[in-house]
Amino acid sequence: MMDKKVIDEFSQIVGPNNILIEDLDLFTYSYDASFLPLIPATKPDLVMKPHSTQEVARIMELANIYRIPVVARGLGSGRTGGSVPVNGGLVLCLDEMNKILEFDGENLTITVEPGVKTQDIYLYCAQRGLFYPPDPSSLKHSTIGGNIAENAGGPRAVKYGVTGNYVMGLEVVLADGSVLQTGGKMIKNVTGYDLTRLFVGSEGTLGVITQAILKLIPMPKRWRTVQVLFDSLEGACAAVSRAIKSGTIPVAAELMDQISLQAVAKFGNFSLDPNVKAGIIFEFDGDSETSLEEQTGGVQKICAEYGSIQFRIAMTQEEETELWSLRRGLSSAVAALAPNRIAEDISVPRNALPEIVKRLRAIAVKYDLQMAIYGHAGDGNLHPSLLVDLSLPGEKEKVDLAVGEIFRAALAVGGTLSGEHGIGITKKEYITDALGETGVATIRSIKKALDPSGILNPGKIF
Amino acid sequence: MMDKKVIDEFSQIVGPNNILIEDLDLFTYSYDASFLPLIPATKPDLVMKPHSTQEVARIMELANIYRIPVVARGLGSGRTGGSVPVNGGLVLCLDEMNKILEFDGENLTITVEPGVKTQDIYLYCAQRGLFYPPDPSSLKHSTIGGNIAENAGGPRAVKYGVTGNYVMGLEVVLADGSVLQTGGKMIKNVTGYDLTRLFVGSEGTLGVITQAILKLIPMPKRWRTVQVLFDSLEGACAAVSRAIKSGTIPVAAELMDQISLQAVAKFGNFSLDPNVKAGIIFEFDGDSETSLEEQTGGVQKICAEYGSIQFRIAMTQEEETELWSLRRGLSSAVAALAPNRIAEDISVPRNALPEIVKRLRAIAVKYDLQMAIYGHAGDGNLHPSLLVDLSLPGEKEKVDLAVGEIFRAALAVGGTLSGEHGIGITKKEYITDALGETGVATIRSIKKALDPSGILNPGKIF
Repeated sequence: MMDKKVIDEFSQIVGPNNILIEDLDLFTYSYDASFLPLIPATKPDLVMKPHSTQEVARIMELANIYRIPVVARGLGSGRTGGSVPVNGGLVLCLDEMNKILEFDGENLTITVEPGVKTQDIYLYCAQRGLFYPPDPSSLKHSTIGGNIAENAGGPRAVKYGVTGNYVMGLEVVLADGSVLQTGGKMIKNVTGYDLTRLFVGSEGTLGVITQAILKLIPMPKRWRTVQVLFDSLEGACAAVSRAIKSGTIPVAAELMDQISLQAVAKFGNFSLDPNVKAGIIFEFDGDSETSLEEQTGGVQKICAEYGSIQFRIAMTQEEETELWSLRRGLSSAVAALAPNRIAEDISVPRNALPEIVKRLRAIAVKYDLQMAIYGHAGDGNLHPSLLVDLSLPGEKEKVDLAVGEIFRAALAVGGTLSGEHGIGITKKEYITDALGETGVATIRSIKKALDPSGILNPGKIF
Repeated sequence: MMDKKVIDEFSQIVGPNNILIEDLDLFTYSYDASFLPLIPATKPDLVMKPHSTQEVARIMELANIYRIPVVARGLGSGRTGGSVPVNGGLVLCLDEMNKILEFDGENLTITVEPGVKTQDIYLYCAQRGLFYPPDPSSLKHSTIGGNIAENAGGPRAVKYGVTGNYVMGLEVVLADGSVLQTGGKMIKNVTGYDLTRLFVGSEGTLGVITQAILKLIPMPKRWRTVQVLFDSLEGACAAVSRAIKSGTIPVAAELMDQISLQAVAKFGNFSLDPNVKAGIIFEFDGDSETSLEEQTGGVQKICAEYGSIQFRIAMTQEEETELWSLRRGLSSAVAALAPNRIAEDISVPRNALPEIVKRLRAIAVKYDLQMAIYGHAGDGNLHPSLLVDLSLPGEKEKVDLAVGEIFRAALAVGGTLSGEHGIGITKKEYITDALGETGVATIRSIKKALDPSGILNPGKIF
């Protein structure tokens, strides 16, 4: 617990209107969107809302002197407990550092504070003819700072990559309060180590991001959404791989298994042909109608070879929205099937999709648990979701064992623990399995070099 | 100098046929392709040619015990002295670890040893319908290990990015001989810090790369090369920016100023209209003739707005080769204009190109030195080249001052010291100007964490 005198010292940095200290307020900063229990709550001692890099720097300087843990966060949409203050201390909530600082239409960049919502960046750029592609499902309620800290992905990663591919430079407050600038607006830059990429995905354990320069690209002129239903999940996976290999790279290729599709059907009040075992929602983009027709035509042929039952091209804006809303509503629809839903986030080489699906099903059978499988088939990133009732005796133990097996299965086929959610708290016990002793020792040594007292988001990753 | 007994110990690891110890042999490992003086030679004490990761690991283990400097290198094509063994010790020449270990047409990856030549990777993949885009000018005589260590660029970076964008995973032998695996064939991976990107561009100072998994993409179906001549250098730069902003991203957009064009003309024995002040060689690719026509048509209009004098589309394979051979021969043609050529490698935000060109010209005038300006206009990476005679009294001093001003000019317009050649020895005195005290302290702390005894390529970067 922090001393009253110390709390006062911190409070003076941001002023009394920008701190939260009441128990109920602290409680609301004790959780994120992961599947961790809320009780007992891991509350911070103090929540601070800084409004400038200078304030963040002064906070870190003081925290470093007093050896107080600091957890930076945005809107708490994380899926692995990354922003949960497990050791108490300070929460730096950066949601009010939410200014778009510069839009540079010449160099195709935008410079933002960490608290800007991802969707706001997308819309701001889109109105000016440019495209910020990363689209985590949380884009309406997640901040860019969190996206960068977790290297968030999203459906469009197949063609356009993840958040990290769009971060050109950062301003970061380090553990001792010094302010680091990395990268810049240069497209090519090999001056010193790539610190920008080191901070991307470091889950708040190496510094507090206070500004980011993001890369933009020209907005594609046309889009097309296609829904394909298959008679097997394996066929659906294989069709996506084949399409990509043929040179047609969809913007997105979202996979849903039968349970997922049934959940959506139930939620949306329509019926589903029982022969349908899997579905893919493809999105394509291009500069001309011809290009879209070539892409959809080619993929239609490939899908037919792999057992497609229906190939539906959205012909209107409404149909497009309808198809995507199925996918966007999927997580909620699946969650509604059972009292608890434990959704994982494994990532495997794309050609290992059929094998991992087989192994996931075997795990579900072994533990007698219902499992929905959906995710980003275009890049091998799946979200196997256990649909359970944790109030049943023995259920939690079964779930824990099954989750462990899911991770081991991902590693066994050459994959990893997380495609886009990070490690946080929920996967840290598996980190050595994934990275090996040398890998963990290496990231630990970097952590120690940049944060010798271990005050930045302690208890995460390793 | 290394002790005879120690040299024997090292030699046993690779066997007597895989070491070089004669003075003349050692001399040939004392330089690279940079503009550093050859005499006095900075020779290693021993050159070793390992053939496996295990051998490299044993060498590093021993070097760490004896605190002997280790410089890893491939074919010595570096431009900043990165592989020059300034502190003597061991040179690990990895050119015989040159196997292509696996081509994975399903996941679109290739796994290689560090000594494979970059062009060999390109050709191997092209024959199988896949595309490895990075194309440093040295691609015929540089190895992938060196490309990764320097994060090499090339003309195609405008559309396809640099080497680092294609490195999915690495095997690296660390300073103490332990073997680290980073990344993998997963497209999305947020398990722990991004160690892959940390080693990319680290210039051999953090570990010895012994394997790399590279990302491939489908081979574009069609290519088109266009040469455009302009009545001003500023117009040429502006046309490239405008084209990219309009949504047409060329594969390459290679800029040449009047001096560069004249050099090429002289070399190729043709005459040049004196009104031509700059030229751009564009390359476009696409999946259809229509797409190529749309791209070239759009860019032709834009070029006309910015003072193009000639717009020549290569209609045959021969013409294409002819246009590109102009660009590929440029460096040699420019070098032939004077006894010595000092070519730099600055990188600036693309819209700062007209300003940096103005500043570069002012520097040439101030020091009364001839300067050719050429480079990758599409991504703001220029190679201003001083054409001098270092045997003249006072010339070297003038050149040193001019080079310092070139770097300061790049930094002043928001750019950096190096776009694709790295820092090595030749730019290290400017590193703090570029990264700031905090930046240098941060990379130093990482270096110390991973190589506490400082045996890996000492004397480079900082």
